[in-house]
Amino acid sequence: MSGEGMSYAAAGVDIEAYERVLARVKPLIAATHGEDVAVGVGPFAGLFALPGGGHLAASADGVGTKIKVAIAASSHRGIGVDLVNHCVNDIATAAARPLFFLDYFATGKLDPEVFTQVIEGVTLACREAGCALLGGETAEMPGVYALGDYDLAGFIVGMVEPGLMRDQKNIRAGDVLIGLPSSGLHTNGFSLVRKVFEDVPLDRVFPELGRPLGEELLEPHRSYLQELGSINWKAAAHITGGGVLGNLPRCLPEGLGAHLGRRSWDELPIFGLLSKRGRIADIEMFGTFNMGLGMILVVDRDEVPRSACVVGEVVEHSGGERVVIN
Amino acid sequence: MSGEGMSYAAAGVDIEAYERVLARVKPLIAATHGEDVAVGVGPFAGLFALPGGGHLAASADGVGTKIKVAIAASSHRGIGVDLVNHCVNDIATAAARPLFFLDYFATGKLDPEVFTQVIEGVTLACREAGCALLGGETAEMPGVYALGDYDLAGFIVGMVEPGLMRDQKNIRAGDVLIGLPSSGLHTNGFSLVRKVFEDVPLDRVFPELGRPLGEELLEPHRSYLQELGSINWKAAAHITGGGVLGNLPRCLPEGLGAHLGRRSWDELPIFGLLSKRGRIADIEMFGTFNMGLGMILVVDRDEVPRSACVVGEVVEHSGGERVVIN
Repeated sequence: MSGEGMSYAAAGVDIEAYERVLARVKPLIAATHGEDVAVGVGPFAGLFALPGGGHLAASADGVGTKIKVAIAASSHRGIGVDLVNHCVNDIATAAARPLFFLDYFATGKLDPEVFTQVIEGVTLACREAGCALLGGETAEMPGVYALGDYDLAGFIVGMVEPGLMRDQKNIRAGDVLIGLPSSGLHTNGFSLVRKVFEDVPLDRVFPELGRPLGEELLEPHRSYLQELGSINWKAAAHITGGGVLGNLPRCLPEGLGAHLGRRSWDELPIFGLLSKRGRIADIEMFGTFNMGLGMILVVDRDEVPRSACVVGEVVEHSGGERVVIN
Repeated sequence: MSGEGMSYAAAGVDIEAYERVLARVKPLIAATHGEDVAVGVGPFAGLFALPGGGHLAASADGVGTKIKVAIAASSHRGIGVDLVNHCVNDIATAAARPLFFLDYFATGKLDPEVFTQVIEGVTLACREAGCALLGGETAEMPGVYALGDYDLAGFIVGMVEPGLMRDQKNIRAGDVLIGLPSSGLHTNGFSLVRKVFEDVPLDRVFPELGRPLGEELLEPHRSYLQELGSINWKAAAHITGGGVLGNLPRCLPEGLGAHLGRRSWDELPIFGLLSKRGRIADIEMFGTFNMGLGMILVVDRDEVPRSACVVGEVVEHSGGERVVIN
């Protein structure tokens, strides 16, 4: 990575520091787990065994500083969609069907228009996912949030029917990696994105994007629920914070890695623009963004659908980078 | 209410404005509900029917601006306890046993010490409730949160065994109200509390409190899980935002109200101090704080335990205030 280019850490987010803290609290968290917690099974969702069979899958997510772009553009419906679909995709990687969703909306002073737009987006995405908006918390916290600012968190619970749970043990070298296209940046890397475009008005139209910058940045996070139901997959990686490099290995067992062919999918123009404008090195781009791949599936060679976008394969891994892109 | 005294609205929180917005989004939320959502059954939790019988109960909560006091006092373990117990109590009012919990922690720049303390509190309370910390989201959002600030939301899911679900139809005039003592302010009314004490150092010892102000304000939210399991109750009101006046009616069916005897329970000195110092009218105090009653149970006259603190009774209601205190 060039010393002059931008990076996620320089934009104020330090993922490695977070990993260190997480290691510190892991034993505390493990001490709360009984036998009904299926540890390590769903890397993107928590799994809890129901007494009557099957598992509940749960996930909590936020939308990060994409919220700042929404505030600047006075456009909040998409943020509600982002929040739900981020959660839906997380539990979809555990083969879970969404049951219900709850939201947390915190702000300094409740703006009825903003709140209504967010809930419109949340309920729209909930209906599309067949998921009930079961509850939520709305907090006015003057002094914590600046005027006009807010934050948003979402929480989803889904059901994994008995027999549908995936097991990483079934993954073999030679399995095919299928890429499901992203709709844009989804909800990650926005602290860096905002730094790259900090001097650019949101209504500027870059030729490579063909639409105003604000619209491109705010394009809502896609749901992969339908697609995951139509393919026979062994594992699924939701490409969120940490990008392709951070998330793809999470769905692979020890001893296996991945080879991706850089030219095998459509990277979306926003990523080229970001890389060029921020002089961001490839390793930083792939370690922060989805790069056009919102979800990557591990599929048996015999199960690859004819229309699938094959982006690489699972390989043996005994050292070095677990994900190699060339 | 005196025009000169302090109120929650003047402290920057407008509950009525929130009720108006909520009415606007209610139809959107209802449109996400299928037949598996038990609407209106658990006023403090959402209830979702499981195909195999029983219900899941879920709740989302925050800790409000109590977080600002914790930051000022550099004491965050109790905030983690607050978060979990607020959630545990909410679903306990639906007779739910906690299954699992997820947290959302958002900050400008992750402070390992603060985060670790919060998770220590969260895991401590989870273990006490027999509840797994199943996952969570930690977000660094530079630009949204000021240096040192953070916010916290919690999500809980519990199980209501078949036959345990309470029905408001069983409540009758003449039923007894039992008060379960609070440990202090719990997690509500802090925007007003901070205004009342804004010029007071947290280490000041008021004679009525007998300990430093900061300790009193940060006393963690109690869990009522054990007590609710040992009493045969018909309905339970968790006294949180909106105080006694806002929450007690939520557990009563239409046509019934409540009479409380002001001298029938121990009000805790902090409430007298707040009322005196902020010249806060009684109606504002009871509409904001728990006043020493963290949970109020509706119990059949024949089921009142000998040691119970009887604070009032259910009465017919055909107009005027639903909760009368004298």
